[in-house]
Amino acid sequence: MMLVSRVAALSFVSLPNRTLFSSPSSLFPPVRLRNSRMASFSPVRASAQKLQKPDELIDSVETFIFDCDGVIWKGDSLIDGVPQTLDMLRSKGKRLVFVTNNSTKSRKQYGKKFETLGLNVNEEEIFASSFAAAAYLKSIDFPKDKKVYVIGEDGILKELELAGFQYLGGPADGDKKIELKPGFYMEHDENVGAVVVGFDRYFNYYKVQYGTLCIRENPGCLFIATNRDAVTHLTDAQEWAGGGSMVGAIRGSTQKEPLVVGKPSTFMMDYLSNKFGILKSQICMVGDRLDTDILFGQNGGCKTLLVLSGVTNLQMLQSPDNNIQPDFYTNKVSDFLTLKAAAV
Amino acid sequence: MMLVSRVAALSFVSLPNRTLFSSPSSLFPPVRLRNSRMASFSPVRASAQKLQKPDELIDSVETFIFDCDGVIWKGDSLIDGVPQTLDMLRSKGKRLVFVTNNSTKSRKQYGKKFETLGLNVNEEEIFASSFAAAAYLKSIDFPKDKKVYVIGEDGILKELELAGFQYLGGPADGDKKIELKPGFYMEHDENVGAVVVGFDRYFNYYKVQYGTLCIRENPGCLFIATNRDAVTHLTDAQEWAGGGSMVGAIRGSTQKEPLVVGKPSTFMMDYLSNKFGILKSQICMVGDRLDTDILFGQNGGCKTLLVLSGVTNLQMLQSPDNNIQPDFYTNKVSDFLTLKAAAV
Repeated sequence: MMLVSRVAALSFVSLPNRTLFSSPSSLFPPVRLRNSRMASFSPVRASAQKLQKPDELIDSVETFIFDCDGVIWKGDSLIDGVPQTLDMLRSKGKRLVFVTNNSTKSRKQYGKKFETLGLNVNEEEIFASSFAAAAYLKSIDFPKDKKVYVIGEDGILKELELAGFQYLGGPADGDKKIELKPGFYMEHDENVGAVVVGFDRYFNYYKVQYGTLCIRENPGCLFIATNRDAVTHLTDAQEWAGGGSMVGAIRGSTQKEPLVVGKPSTFMMDYLSNKFGILKSQICMVGDRLDTDILFGQNGGCKTLLVLSGVTNLQMLQSPDNNIQPDFYTNKVSDFLTLKAAAV
Repeated sequence: MMLVSRVAALSFVSLPNRTLFSSPSSLFPPVRLRNSRMASFSPVRASAQKLQKPDELIDSVETFIFDCDGVIWKGDSLIDGVPQTLDMLRSKGKRLVFVTNNSTKSRKQYGKKFETLGLNVNEEEIFASSFAAAAYLKSIDFPKDKKVYVIGEDGILKELELAGFQYLGGPADGDKKIELKPGFYMEHDENVGAVVVGFDRYFNYYKVQYGTLCIRENPGCLFIATNRDAVTHLTDAQEWAGGGSMVGAIRGSTQKEPLVVGKPSTFMMDYLSNKFGILKSQICMVGDRLDTDILFGQNGGCKTLLVLSGVTNLQMLQSPDNNIQPDFYTNKVSDFLTLKAAAV
């Protein structure tokens, strides 16, 4: 029944110029790319159920994919009961994976954040969208003699470097300005074969024009977005304009749609599923955002659990304007423990 | 016949979240806003005719609206035969209006450009999108005790000032950076009631976040775009990322659609039609771009003439991918003179 409505959603969506996520690698069959705005086209799904029997959910899946911010931590503070919950799941033999759309850090840099918070997480279990960008380029055998132009921060550069790709741009272009004189012409590197766009505090017109020139003028140049999130959590004090603004700017000047590698596109899900040989129906996606996390899980054909410890509250979930219904919802991940205890 | 196909196009378009251009002023009845992407939805129109009898066109209209770049001038050079053509049209009692999506200059500043090029054009005949933004705010009686946050250059500030509106942002925020410390909070002015976004070479993350906060957090705050052009002509040497990038960034972070006051939205056409009491069927829009100028003319119910002296060539016009067909096309505006001479 749920699968049917998902298929219905797909066939209903027929926006023009939709980019297909096609990859030459057999690991990644072509998948229709989605973005958060598509949520508004989804048919109404059955309402989410309040999680009451966590054991049933735990027993029915092999892998839990956790979003980080709003689920594991908020800013720099661990959410109550997280270490004990993760320990319990590991003790039951569950595979744990941590996925984040934040591209400003690399896997290694994220690993340090987990360590600082006292969480025992392996680098291999962490999938940030910075890593996803590099993994995507690897998956399509992006030529090593081509270059990547980066609009984004350090995490993307680190992952590209680890994957052996040449890059330019990023923080190095943060202070560049265009001093206009009549006839001024901006040169660009014709060997750039991909522009990767992620969140960038040092975003400027130089980068917009450089990235636009590459995408418009270098034949076959890819436009890859780490994510299109409207909002990010630079600090806890307020919501900050997210990677969606940088991607929106390049979309506005190129009139092209990006290939999105972060949530809610299914690239990371496909990658995980292939890497670990997991059936998607045996994955549960746990997140705090409807239009990225839950949609990501649903797009991938997984079970979904919304936690109310982040940006979504019960009112937003139950609003008639919301068409994205997870399978289950609960207050926070440690409800896995308290509900179990209550059920004994 | 043409009117029918235009109406059909309107009813066919039913994208979600489409912003209605509603104005409380009786001068400006609510008009459905359009943007260049909508062009792909237009039904196929009759192919454009090559202009052969300019007198018939001239006699059938009262007003000519000219786009500037690619029609009147290219960069800093006047296009051949323009002064003589304008003189001829004036001698026949035609009203001439010059419309540009470029918001970096005010009407007054544009007037100087015309003067420098030896063209005798009155400031009142010039409609830049900087002026359109201020005129739109006037048309809706935007309160004088509210402020406008500007992402854009000097032209917008000048026009807001002339119209008596308070503003902040613009070039003054061009060097501002966000130095992140944990818990950092960006204050914003709660009296900002509109964010005007235009082309801005000094675009940065500070402006994106400030504009986004105003639109998201100030009740009823408007998001006004001078234009959404993918490309602008900062210099003749190459194409430059246009106002569409700045607008795309704010759209990406607010997930709201802008009210567009420049071409191809019909605001300026409605304004002109009301100001001068012109019937739209007696206007001919002359431009070099299909998705702004010609669509602008068609959206307004005017006759349209494409000149091939700018960004569009005959191959682009006749491509099967192009759904925007002007009524007529010709090489350049001075064909009005040469074709007349040939016809004698």
